[in-house]
Amino acid sequence: MEIAFAKSGGLVPAIVQDGRTSEVLMLGFMNAEALAETQRTREAVFFSRSRNRLWKKGESSGHVLRVLEIRIDCDADALLLRVEPLGPGVCHEGYRSCFFRRIEENGGIRTVEEQAFDPTKVYAPGTEQ
Amino acid sequence: MEIAFAKSGGLVPAIVQDGRTSEVLMLGFMNAEALAETQRTREAVFFSRSRNRLWKKGESSGHVLRVLEIRIDCDADALLLRVEPLGPGVCHEGYRSCFFRRIEENGGIRTVEEQAFDPTKVYAPGTEQ
Repeated sequence: MEIAFAKSGGLVPAIVQDGRTSEVLMLGFMNAEALAETQRTREAVFFSRSRNRLWKKGESSGHVLRVLEIRIDCDADALLLRVEPLGPGVCHEGYRSCFFRRIEENGGIRTVEEQAFDPTKVYAPGTEQ
Repeated sequence: MEIAFAKSGGLVPAIVQDGRTSEVLMLGFMNAEALAETQRTREAVFFSRSRNRLWKKGESSGHVLRVLEIRIDCDADALLLRVEPLGPGVCHEGYRSCFFRRIEENGGIRTVEEQAFDPTKVYAPGTEQ
């Protein structure tokens, strides 16, 4: 079973789920090198599309994702990482999960989670997450 | 807050999570029309990259995904659908979740879930999921 990196221009989406609470925390993208580095270190490494380079989650914040398990889907074109997140949250806006906003039935967008930490104390302007 | 369809060539990844068990079931892609149709009907509609058209999950199997909640991430470039899945599983290989295989630490790939239904009784060859 070959992972279908080619199908999506070298990158596959990687869902990150908290292995204890099952909360979905974020979605990143991985190329073959990011996956290999994640497997080798058992800490999540992604490929940043905006910075066009490998990006280890927590490289500046310390909020590393310890990888408990890597799943692959039936078409081998999406990954699911079950992790133990170190730190209070994965989102650079200060939330446990990046999915802290809901699209309401009327189309409005509303924050539905509590902020977990003060991002200005963790992320200096322009630094990585 | 505008959803960043343009950033990924018109499509954003949409994670599907069981709203009762929190199990991650599948990952699809949505364009603006798929999201609008999902919002209108409260049943999940994706854009199929392989068939290049809108695809309502369950259109032939009956295994429709009733949408309980739609979340959007901090960068507005990924969606999380919390759903009530109708039917025994979402995967065309007969599993509850498409993420039924694990990538082992030695790189091997192993099925780690029980099959939930017989896909040959649900999917005729060549039909949609």
